[in-house]
Amino acid sequence: MKVLILGGAGMVGRKLAERLARDGELGGKAISQITLYDVVEPTAPAGASFPVTCETGDLPADGETDRLIAAKPDVVFHLAAIVSGEAELDFEKGYRINLGGTQNLFESIHKAQYAPRVVFTSSIAVYGAPFPEAIPDEFHLTPLTSYGTQKAIGELLLADYTRKGIFDGVGIRLPTICVRPGKPNKAASGFFSNIIREPLVGEGAVLPVSEDVRHWHASPRSAVNFLIHAATIDGDLIGPRRNLAMPGVSVTVGEQIEALRRVAGDDAVKLIRSEPDDLIVSVVSGWARNFETRRALDLGFQADASFDDIIKVHIEDELDGKIGPR
Amino acid sequence: MKVLILGGAGMVGRKLAERLARDGELGGKAISQITLYDVVEPTAPAGASFPVTCETGDLPADGETDRLIAAKPDVVFHLAAIVSGEAELDFEKGYRINLGGTQNLFESIHKAQYAPRVVFTSSIAVYGAPFPEAIPDEFHLTPLTSYGTQKAIGELLLADYTRKGIFDGVGIRLPTICVRPGKPNKAASGFFSNIIREPLVGEGAVLPVSEDVRHWHASPRSAVNFLIHAATIDGDLIGPRRNLAMPGVSVTVGEQIEALRRVAGDDAVKLIRSEPDDLIVSVVSGWARNFETRRALDLGFQADASFDDIIKVHIEDELDGKIGPR
Repeated sequence: MKVLILGGAGMVGRKLAERLARDGELGGKAISQITLYDVVEPTAPAGASFPVTCETGDLPADGETDRLIAAKPDVVFHLAAIVSGEAELDFEKGYRINLGGTQNLFESIHKAQYAPRVVFTSSIAVYGAPFPEAIPDEFHLTPLTSYGTQKAIGELLLADYTRKGIFDGVGIRLPTICVRPGKPNKAASGFFSNIIREPLVGEGAVLPVSEDVRHWHASPRSAVNFLIHAATIDGDLIGPRRNLAMPGVSVTVGEQIEALRRVAGDDAVKLIRSEPDDLIVSVVSGWARNFETRRALDLGFQADASFDDIIKVHIEDELDGKIGPR
Repeated sequence: MKVLILGGAGMVGRKLAERLARDGELGGKAISQITLYDVVEPTAPAGASFPVTCETGDLPADGETDRLIAAKPDVVFHLAAIVSGEAELDFEKGYRINLGGTQNLFESIHKAQYAPRVVFTSSIAVYGAPFPEAIPDEFHLTPLTSYGTQKAIGELLLADYTRKGIFDGVGIRLPTICVRPGKPNKAASGFFSNIIREPLVGEGAVLPVSEDVRHWHASPRSAVNFLIHAATIDGDLIGPRRNLAMPGVSVTVGEQIEALRRVAGDDAVKLIRSEPDDLIVSVVSGWARNFETRRALDLGFQADASFDDIIKVHIEDELDGKIGPR
């Protein structure tokens, strides 16, 4: 089985490649080859028992997706996208990469006349306020960003190409990934991770919103589990509605902090400093808070059990099991 | 005020042009010029007090939408599309015209750096079964045809281009238009009109489904009213959710027939012959039956009062007020 990961240098793509290298198989079939593709050079995972090719390129460029599909990968993970903030600042670039790249990919598969499994990562950015306290599976998509619009269009194309038998697609709407490893960044959602990740290693973190802000989270490990399950699930079980909101953990910032206290103690919590930021407060107020993901749960997608578990996953996977200053 | 009607040779486009010629104005502003554009030659409406230009062309061809937008029409009615059956049979053509044509149009307006009102006709084909008995405004779009997919994508683009201030768009999901004038055709939905239109002039009509089939209808006159209202409504009242399911009349085929009996008598009803067609029964079973269009009603879009009225509109507008053999 050959696997292609578009967006293979991103955090989720990298973790997916590491997992596949560790497993050596996908859905019970031995992996013979993985290609990681991104706009920046991906890193091959250590210890893979099969060849890993790392490539860079510009996904929507002429002929690029034809070239990537020429090897007829059995599973295509399409994680490639420019992020929300950049798609909002650069309208043309967002449509060129997030929509044009996706259209080219789907058409290249169409021309190649074979029907691989295509796993497409969508996002809860496809939803736009106002919405109910818990968003049901049948709630409409009214994105309030160009990024969310591009993801929603990708979902529609994926469902139609699948319905026509051109490929066998599964779209998954990822929750906000928390705890996101790496350095603090300026993404509006960054604080959800910062207030956990930094105190765990004895560093301070800024909380720019009030503790009653509620949001929808999944650990990086769960995100990889979702991708693997989406790659291997029987498509007939899904039916024509091929895009699924993924399960997650709905917690307030206050509940995040109490989980941190349980896992790492009062000293960790004391490192969080409240500094309200009106811009972030305003942006976050338009985000989804909670979901009823009945379909995904029925289809066997599994979320983290609690926010405590989300913190413990971070400690296991990123901190070698040890908290405190590095 | 300059008006551009894309799809100006279609039934709704033609009736819209006739209405604008009769009114001479749109939203209180005198019309100075109308361009009708279609793949086949449109017919200029009689009696217009302003110049009417009729043009033919291939909407998604290079430079075509740039050329059409060069005159900077104040209102663009985008009704152009290949129909559902053709988009299903010819996948490439459907995407090229219904999606590519729409993308080109929106980008041409973007490049022209002005922000006209754009009225986009979407369709209830954006919905896919299963759905609740009456579909609410917040129900998700899961089209089961390529045509419905292309319309749903057009809606998403329209909302995003509007949010970015590139133009001022309003998308309207039209009910099935009934009574559709002209000859019986083989569209799966044709019988809804055939069983009324043909008996009104003493001709026989075939009913291929059972009388308990329920569907969602609007007269051609209401469709034109929706377009005019969408062209003139204050966009701020609509907010960011720029696509609206239009109100209509939800009736069973049996109720359609009883309305025909009230308007045209038993002799007309006797001209309807039941001939079940399993294919049509199956296609129609996946169609929406009823809607709750609270938002559109609150915004002043008005449906026909009853199916009796829908029949009377046909008699007034198409039969010069007289029923019976021609």
